[in-house]
Amino acid sequence: MTDSALNLTPAPQPAVEVLGVLRDLTAGEGLTGLSAALAQLRAYVGEDLERVEHELEHVPRAQDVVGRSLHHLLTLDGKRLRPLCVALAARIGRGGGPAVVRLATAVELVHSATLLHDDVVDDGTLRRGRPTARVLYGNAASVFAGDWLLIEALRRVQGAGVPGVMEALLATIDEMIRAEALQLECRGRLVLDEDVYFRVVEGKTAALFRWAMQAGAAAGGLAPEAQEALMAYGMDLGVAFQIIDDALDLAGDAEATGKALFTDLFEGKMTYPLLVGAEADPALRGLVEDAMASEAGVDAKVATKVVAALRRTGALEATRKKAEAHARRAGEHLEAVPDGVARRALTLVAQAAVHRSK
Amino acid sequence: MTDSALNLTPAPQPAVEVLGVLRDLTAGEGLTGLSAALAQLRAYVGEDLERVEHELEHVPRAQDVVGRSLHHLLTLDGKRLRPLCVALAARIGRGGGPAVVRLATAVELVHSATLLHDDVVDDGTLRRGRPTARVLYGNAASVFAGDWLLIEALRRVQGAGVPGVMEALLATIDEMIRAEALQLECRGRLVLDEDVYFRVVEGKTAALFRWAMQAGAAAGGLAPEAQEALMAYGMDLGVAFQIIDDALDLAGDAEATGKALFTDLFEGKMTYPLLVGAEADPALRGLVEDAMASEAGVDAKVATKVVAALRRTGALEATRKKAEAHARRAGEHLEAVPDGVARRALTLVAQAAVHRSK
Repeated sequence: MTDSALNLTPAPQPAVEVLGVLRDLTAGEGLTGLSAALAQLRAYVGEDLERVEHELEHVPRAQDVVGRSLHHLLTLDGKRLRPLCVALAARIGRGGGPAVVRLATAVELVHSATLLHDDVVDDGTLRRGRPTARVLYGNAASVFAGDWLLIEALRRVQGAGVPGVMEALLATIDEMIRAEALQLECRGRLVLDEDVYFRVVEGKTAALFRWAMQAGAAAGGLAPEAQEALMAYGMDLGVAFQIIDDALDLAGDAEATGKALFTDLFEGKMTYPLLVGAEADPALRGLVEDAMASEAGVDAKVATKVVAALRRTGALEATRKKAEAHARRAGEHLEAVPDGVARRALTLVAQAAVHRSK
Repeated sequence: MTDSALNLTPAPQPAVEVLGVLRDLTAGEGLTGLSAALAQLRAYVGEDLERVEHELEHVPRAQDVVGRSLHHLLTLDGKRLRPLCVALAARIGRGGGPAVVRLATAVELVHSATLLHDDVVDDGTLRRGRPTARVLYGNAASVFAGDWLLIEALRRVQGAGVPGVMEALLATIDEMIRAEALQLECRGRLVLDEDVYFRVVEGKTAALFRWAMQAGAAAGGLAPEAQEALMAYGMDLGVAFQIIDDALDLAGDAEATGKALFTDLFEGKMTYPLLVGAEADPALRGLVEDAMASEAGVDAKVATKVVAALRRTGALEATRKKAEAHARRAGEHLEAVPDGVARRALTLVAQAAVHRSK
């Protein structure tokens, strides 16, 4: 096997786009030793992901505004990172099968449902570089489309028939909503409390990654200890992922992320760079407090000042380091499961979650 | 047993308020022979419903806006008609138990979740005589509170462990959302199509009554044929119930219903009286078309004119007759199940659904 195995042709399906991210990462980091693993990864997980993509494209829907709303979101080019987690966790065990495709599709549907409702709650206007469904089809359609995707996800999980994963998903969504409620409660205020910040992040983002790993592990027939290790991986992966999201909102490339910059700030949401920066610099604290509480929103001048201050205080660097620490911890949890292609792929996924630019 | 058995003391819990409705109905209709049945009904279903009320009061919730939103709705004085259906269906079989309380609580939680989302979608301001949760705590809190109630309902259904009811509930909610989507699609237009009207009503209202009957029947250990008969009862009961809701929106007593009058008209929703009236009277058709399409809403003068025209065309009377026909059909489905207190109570419930003033 030569390094040319790394030169994967452009992904024909958005489903395998994340494999491109992994490839770029390994190429960039010179991890050429992993090329064989990646080629294998593409051969077997790529197929699972293409099946998931097929399912997402063929989600049954009426020809009405609700149907159009949900289809709009589902066909936007997502990273499909959560389905990848399900597929890889299953491969740590005895692997694929129709249950894995069902569970992997379900996790993306749950994620999509939360995006639809979040956009309504946040008055979001841009998602994955396109206007949000609520802008195109109205809030009403997005509320029902989110409800419907959630139910569709649960039906697929029920249909997968893997013991324990339904209860676990319901408990996970409960956690997600509680975290969203906590975030809503803190909205518009600068809450300098790491504990609150991490409760929100673990609930709203990491819990679903944890479930993705649990679902895949259960479908792959893994023993409870291995399942626990993979769930811990999912939790740290999710936290790392969200922390990077926070950083990209302030200092990312809007073209790459497909989201407007400073959205979190505009919506009065606490993010990790703000937390670190405001703790370090009282002047920044005042600036951010005013910006978050502002009804009129944050103007570009203030936002530029905030980002400059964040760079000065080293908050953006501290943010990246925090994410890296979680990605590393994610990797450490994997030591409890058998080594192989899937495990090495999961290590890469954790690195890719931190080094991504979108 | 004397008629004094009918003189039930005032209900100590809103849960048993519906028994008061049944009592008033039987008193009004002179159905004194049913007094013994009602006394028994109170003795055994009242207890189930009080347990449901206890569950609803103690739904775990955070002290945040989402928690306050959902609590606000749950503690409003509801009719608890859906939990009553679960309890009575179970009594057709071998009766109660903790599973029945779980399922009966779940059906009210699902109903409450849809009310929270509907109020967001419709910009509703008044519900059960009080400002809606979204007016008090905002749309964002109501979206998440609705999501959370739905998940809480599903967890209780999962916990009840009655085979088949979880799948059936997911399929039912799917139907409910599709119907809401269809209604949304038709909003603001006078759609003179009985088929569309009944598809909306069966989905958005009757399907959940059908599930309530199915869940109770399954928990009570009934054979498939009896379950089917009770589901058919639920469907006709739900349609009758919704048709009366339509009539109360136009010609009810706002004080009794706790809802603003002409809400459906204001929101551009098709109702049965409008359908019948506009088919019968072309002048009314134009009036209603303008009223439904109006962005500014319907003013009191137009609404009064519409109601006068509906009375003139006999549409309100036709509406009541249609509801009575469905209530009667509901009663006929019961002939397939064993006679007894529970069956007679269900007959009464169908009559009460039509003769209620709130």
